[in-house]
Amino acid sequence: MTTSHTVPEASQQSLTFVLVHGAFQTGATWDHVASELRRLGHLVHTPTLAGHGPGAPLNLTHADGVASLVAYLQQHALSDVVLVGHSIAGSFIAKAAEQDPDRIKRLVFLSSFTVSSGNSLADEFPPETSAVFAMADPAQGLLLPFELIRERACNDMPLADAETLHAAMTPVPVAYFTDKLDLTTFYELIGSGKLKTSYVNPVNDIALPPGEYGWETRAQRLGPLCRILHTPGAHYAMTTQPTELADTLIQAGRD
Amino acid sequence: MTTSHTVPEASQQSLTFVLVHGAFQTGATWDHVASELRRLGHLVHTPTLAGHGPGAPLNLTHADGVASLVAYLQQHALSDVVLVGHSIAGSFIAKAAEQDPDRIKRLVFLSSFTVSSGNSLADEFPPETSAVFAMADPAQGLLLPFELIRERACNDMPLADAETLHAAMTPVPVAYFTDKLDLTTFYELIGSGKLKTSYVNPVNDIALPPGEYGWETRAQRLGPLCRILHTPGAHYAMTTQPTELADTLIQAGRD
Amino acid sequence: MTTSHTVPEASQQSLTFVLVHGAFQTGATWDHVASELRRLGHLVHTPTLAGHGPGAPLNLTHADGVASLVAYLQQHALSDVVLVGHSIAGSFIAKAAEQDPDRIKRLVFLSSFTVSSGNSLADEFPPETSAVFAMADPAQGLLLPFELIRERACNDMPLADAETLHAAMTPVPVAYFTDKLDLTTFYELIGSGKLKTSYVNPVNDIALPPGEYGWETRAQRLGPLCRILHTPGAHYAMTTQPTELADTLIQAGRD
Repeated sequence: MTTSHTVPEASQQSLTFVLVHGAFQTGATWDHVASELRRLGHLVHTPTLAGHGPGAPLNLTHADGVASLVAYLQQHALSDVVLVGHSIAGSFIAKAAEQDPDRIKRLVFLSSFTVSSGNSLADEFPPETSAVFAMADPAQGLLLPFELIRERACNDMPLADAETLHAAMTPVPVAYFTDKLDLTTFYELIGSGKLKTSYVNPVNDIALPPGEYGWETRAQRLGPLCRILHTPGAHYAMTTQPTELADTLIQAGRD
Repeated sequence: MTTSHTVPEASQQSLTFVLVHGAFQTGATWDHVASELRRLGHLVHTPTLAGHGPGAPLNLTHADGVASLVAYLQQHALSDVVLVGHSIAGSFIAKAAEQDPDRIKRLVFLSSFTVSSGNSLADEFPPETSAVFAMADPAQGLLLPFELIRERACNDMPLADAETLHAAMTPVPVAYFTDKLDLTTFYELIGSGKLKTSYVNPVNDIALPPGEYGWETRAQRLGPLCRILHTPGAHYAMTTQPTELADTLIQAGRD
Repeated sequence: MTTSHTVPEASQQSLTFVLVHGAFQTGATWDHVASELRRLGHLVHTPTLAGHGPGAPLNLTHADGVASLVAYLQQHALSDVVLVGHSIAGSFIAKAAEQDPDRIKRLVFLSSFTVSSGNSLADEFPPETSAVFAMADPAQGLLLPFELIRERACNDMPLADAETLHAAMTPVPVAYFTDKLDLTTFYELIGSGKLKTSYVNPVNDIALPPGEYGWETRAQRLGPLCRILHTPGAHYAMTTQPTELADTLIQAGRD
């Protein structure tokens, strides 16, 4: 093939994806998924949130992260966006949708937190993990230890790949995890049908423990019209199964 | 191929399947699965329950639906039947088995309700959905809205396929959902070992929300000897994955 | 092929597996998995626990079973062992690890019980099943009835294969199921990070009912650093999916 874009089948809808990475990462984590989506005829943006990437400022609030995402959508004049949030980015896409719902076609939560209104992200972790956030030094930012990332989020990867992934991670503002989030408007937009949602769960994702903290609980918060889909892989399916994930994101985002 | 039947392998058992469709559909929903089962050497019946299909009477009780199934089994003098019920048909096969257990080899519940004795089908939905049934007009019958079918039952389908599927649906008697069902005999037949059961769960089936209302709870009601199997696809796996579903139904129905 | 060993890829770690069978079976149950692991360059041991196999003594305690495993590890001077326990062997590998943790690289629980300290294995079954153990005659040993094994553990097998599997089973000491197990040290070793664990769940494994008794509960007991992986197949994945299981055991056991 001589072009990275192909014309989609007549029956296939061309979508505009904005893929938002999880904590400690940048937009580059989506490279393989984005290539695959573009090959299938879709438009793809992979912004890096404020507070992420080497040298990023660490004295930011969660609202600063949201503002950087809203600004990206507005500066690129994006509309009809399938806005995908991985892991903690579920909280950023939810807050961004509150501020500018008219740009959003659908929110897609991938391996994602769906924060209860009034909670912080840290509150959504089980107690034994959330202690990590209380102890973090805001001046240093927060980066989860390798062992936890390796066992719970890279459970399907060889060690070398997990090491590469963690080595590229950088600390993020502690307040991203500890700021309490008012999501009243977000849940109202869902309840009124103005905001559509999908939840994508990689079958081997055990970054949050199954059961009380598992995907079922998180997807349920998005109400009876949330479209739920499973996909191969674990928490970093964009690294280990990018082709399959691209396909599932299309299923999650299309009309 | 010049015949739709092939001789099964010596080691493979030829089974008699009666496949019972879910709400709003007819026996035609099984066409692809039935073809595949016949190709593998099995006998297949796909009756349409009373109260289903274009122009069907809507002033029926749940017992009328059951009676139409029992009559079908008797008129065709069927025996040793693997009786498969999709979705709400779980309640019809359970009641039919109470009336004529000797014709049944095994009940197979696919994406299915297993109603607690004394409940109606509506009682087995989560509260936010069961309100739909209380508001339904018996003279009009009941048909779930497209958006709910599309997001929760066609979650793995392109829009056009979901539209085709819903366009073919027709209303069913409201009493099918609201009649209270005495299933004392059904659960006694299971407890005594006289009635064998299997439960088949498509891995992407989220027509009922995961967790409290999910397949685990429903399968558990069938007791410690229920054979549970997962299969690819979502609530309409007979439409999206007929070959795989046929294979799983054989695994569910064989000795 | 003229040799059963091949050189692993440079990037692949050669592991030493000790595969411990479940109740009523012997080390022979691992034959296909062991062949596959050896073909991939790993060392594999498949000991038979005391109290298992034709003619085995039935007047043993759970501690005798553990002692036979510890003796095997010591007599073969094994170190850096990936110690895999299937089903009830989860309890034997846990107790063995308490006695000789320095030989263990990682414990892998496959379809496995993770007994709460102070409980017996029988206590970890749902009430309707645990009654079987209370009624067992110690002089005869215990063997679960065919129907239960067929429906809940061989749910994905043809009847003939399930019959072959059950016909090869022999009774085991009743005390293996009824002895109360002090696992204080085991859970301390996990909590301190001295003992690493993985949990492997075959997706069709419903030997213990899903929900309260399911894999989620059992894996959670192993703490926030347990590496959890799903694999194809059901309770006897070593029989039905040996190649895929070997691959998953490598993922579970590697650094």
